[in-house]
Amino acid sequence: MALIVQKYGGTSVGSPERIKNVVRRVAKYKALGHQLVVVVSAMSGETNRLIGLAKEMQAQPDPRELDMVVSTGEQVTVGLVSMGLIQEGLKAKSYTGAQVKITTDSAFTKARILSIDEQNIRADLDNGYVVVVAGFQGIDKDGNITTLGRGGSDTTGVAIAAALHADECQIYTDVDGVYTTDPRVVPEARRLKTITFEEMLEMASLGSKVLQIRAVEFAGKYRVKLRVLSSFEEEGDGTLITFEEDDKMEQAIISGIAFNRDEAKITVRGVPDKPGIAYQILGPVSEANVDVDMIIQNVGVDDSTDFSFTVHRNEFDKAMDILKNKVQHHIGARNVVGDNKTAKVSVVGVGMRSHVGIASKMFRTLAEEGINIQMISTSEIKISVVIDEKYLELAVRVLHKAFDLDLEPA
Amino acid sequence: MALIVQKYGGTSVGSPERIKNVVRRVAKYKALGHQLVVVVSAMSGETNRLIGLAKEMQAQPDPRELDMVVSTGEQVTVGLVSMGLIQEGLKAKSYTGAQVKITTDSAFTKARILSIDEQNIRADLDNGYVVVVAGFQGIDKDGNITTLGRGGSDTTGVAIAAALHADECQIYTDVDGVYTTDPRVVPEARRLKTITFEEMLEMASLGSKVLQIRAVEFAGKYRVKLRVLSSFEEEGDGTLITFEEDDKMEQAIISGIAFNRDEAKITVRGVPDKPGIAYQILGPVSEANVDVDMIIQNVGVDDSTDFSFTVHRNEFDKAMDILKNKVQHHIGARNVVGDNKTAKVSVVGVGMRSHVGIASKMFRTLAEEGINIQMISTSEIKISVVIDEKYLELAVRVLHKAFDLDLEPA
Repeated sequence: MALIVQKYGGTSVGSPERIKNVVRRVAKYKALGHQLVVVVSAMSGETNRLIGLAKEMQAQPDPRELDMVVSTGEQVTVGLVSMGLIQEGLKAKSYTGAQVKITTDSAFTKARILSIDEQNIRADLDNGYVVVVAGFQGIDKDGNITTLGRGGSDTTGVAIAAALHADECQIYTDVDGVYTTDPRVVPEARRLKTITFEEMLEMASLGSKVLQIRAVEFAGKYRVKLRVLSSFEEEGDGTLITFEEDDKMEQAIISGIAFNRDEAKITVRGVPDKPGIAYQILGPVSEANVDVDMIIQNVGVDDSTDFSFTVHRNEFDKAMDILKNKVQHHIGARNVVGDNKTAKVSVVGVGMRSHVGIASKMFRTLAEEGINIQMISTSEIKISVVIDEKYLELAVRVLHKAFDLDLEPA
Repeated sequence: MALIVQKYGGTSVGSPERIKNVVRRVAKYKALGHQLVVVVSAMSGETNRLIGLAKEMQAQPDPRELDMVVSTGEQVTVGLVSMGLIQEGLKAKSYTGAQVKITTDSAFTKARILSIDEQNIRADLDNGYVVVVAGFQGIDKDGNITTLGRGGSDTTGVAIAAALHADECQIYTDVDGVYTTDPRVVPEARRLKTITFEEMLEMASLGSKVLQIRAVEFAGKYRVKLRVLSSFEEEGDGTLITFEEDDKMEQAIISGIAFNRDEAKITVRGVPDKPGIAYQILGPVSEANVDVDMIIQNVGVDDSTDFSFTVHRNEFDKAMDILKNKVQHHIGARNVVGDNKTAKVSVVGVGMRSHVGIASKMFRTLAEEGINIQMISTSEIKISVVIDEKYLELAVRVLHKAFDLDLEPA
């Protein structure tokens, strides 16, 4: 008998019919003798509907009031799931974030979990109940309802699993696991049986949007065993996210090819090569709430250097405007150039730590196809390059092949 | 400066546009220097939508889980109203029933309010906030979300007004007050400036569905000054529901003509005239959850009597079936007859206490039109008769005229 936390996303609970599928799966696990906590998101579309209503009242809805409104989405789902379980003859009980005392800070719309009082849940589990908890939401110390921001339901699942020392946290989604790359780009892409937390973090942040990155970090911190599964398939073990690198020793050096289509690159040329210059360039950008991804600065020549970074394509114009009008003359840079027709491709794998030549293999593979590399950035377990967006699919396909990702590891 | 509780029903907050009207009205009162608590229902249609979802999961939804789901309706509205007020430059803060600690018993879907902790509301009011509270809902002592049942938002408004000792509780609805009778039946029907609580109770229970009867009872018990107003009209003082009969002394003897179209009458004939017989007849009926309205038993003749009562037309067949198959032979009655083509008309007025001849005037008026009276029942402040439903409109019109209800009181 194990204690399992299952988290179902909005698509998995998108209609009463789909909720009944969730109910059947939960009942199956329950019949095997497991204790179950089920964490659910709002029905797909519901959160957007509620935000739409809010925006009709205020173009920029008050954050406290927005959380009041949006948190109802999950509250509806927990009730419906619970009804379905009771209908199946199970004992079930639903809870809002506030009722389980998922205490967060007061950063409305993007709150962080501080603590969970797991006593009620544990008592219910011991009494044979399936406990159904609203994801994505909590309560601050003053009793205000908060939400964790988009995708926060994953975090709720992991946090509850951590608080209960659950045997496993299963994240059900509309894909059946983590793939070596996006199967829509590379049909030979293969589902990974396991992936390490570090790799998962790199894959997630690089665009393989299976799991919310905060949830992965949280799971890593509290050593929660995480598994990604499909809620639309009866069978399959999904992908287990592990802490143990040992298992990986005999496996592939590279676990996957991540990519991001929405990258735009900006270069500030002729920047005086002196301390504080990076902050003077990026300070105004981040103050305008523009998220920066890759940042590259090469060694300077003649007291002058070029400073490059990437932003989301939607924020390209905004960032260019700030740099040209607020930064360039202020710091005495020569000029600012940008390109929003770029994409980022990364090879990810803990194996590259102990293997040389991964970078050169990657660069050679791209060169053989005539793909020019515009920027390079590396970490311990990944190498990212920025290329012309028109070569993106080609790059992903040839790299997937070059690193033998279409083959089962020996 | 007064402390005013305003309650807006589902139609009044049925869309963002309508909520903006509510916001404007609240802002107007606030600008006059009043302290304001706003109690709101779910947007019209929302509660039914949620119940529909629940019924897709369970034909008879689990009551605790149903309250979990349905209570989100008002939670959405309080957030939206609050946003609207903030957008208008006011300070505003929304609360769920649980957050204000509207403590109820645990009778899910029909809970009763036990207490309200008004401290948070008062602190916010003193700090210049408009406080927006979700109607219809509360929390039991174990922290479960409860609802007060349909129309419970009126009760929430009155209960908060009572807890805060508010100067007035204004109930905004889609009519502009209480009328002498239904204006669709009698175009000359006149809005009453005031009505006593007792009259209101009789009018409400008899079919003038302006205010939830529980809310009126609650207001009477805690002596809350209640006013019914239209949320769709800018001007008008609505109808004030008073405790003071003094004001009525010079006014009309009769305040209004109430009626109920859906009455069905049932008579059990030849009932042995002995103790316990009323219970033996009505016990099985009420056990089947059939509500009984009027009950009449005349003095017996030869140890035998006739026992009559009325039920809602929809429950006529069910009640007849119970009486014929479970009661008649058991108690040795002669037979059971019924008629579901009947209607009830009542004249209501505290004035009739001190005036004789009201009943005879009523009966004469009906007789002059050839309307046969099938049953009569009286209380201190009302006289009700059951008649053939085809005469209903005629009866209401002639009685309205006979008691001079179309004329302003002197």
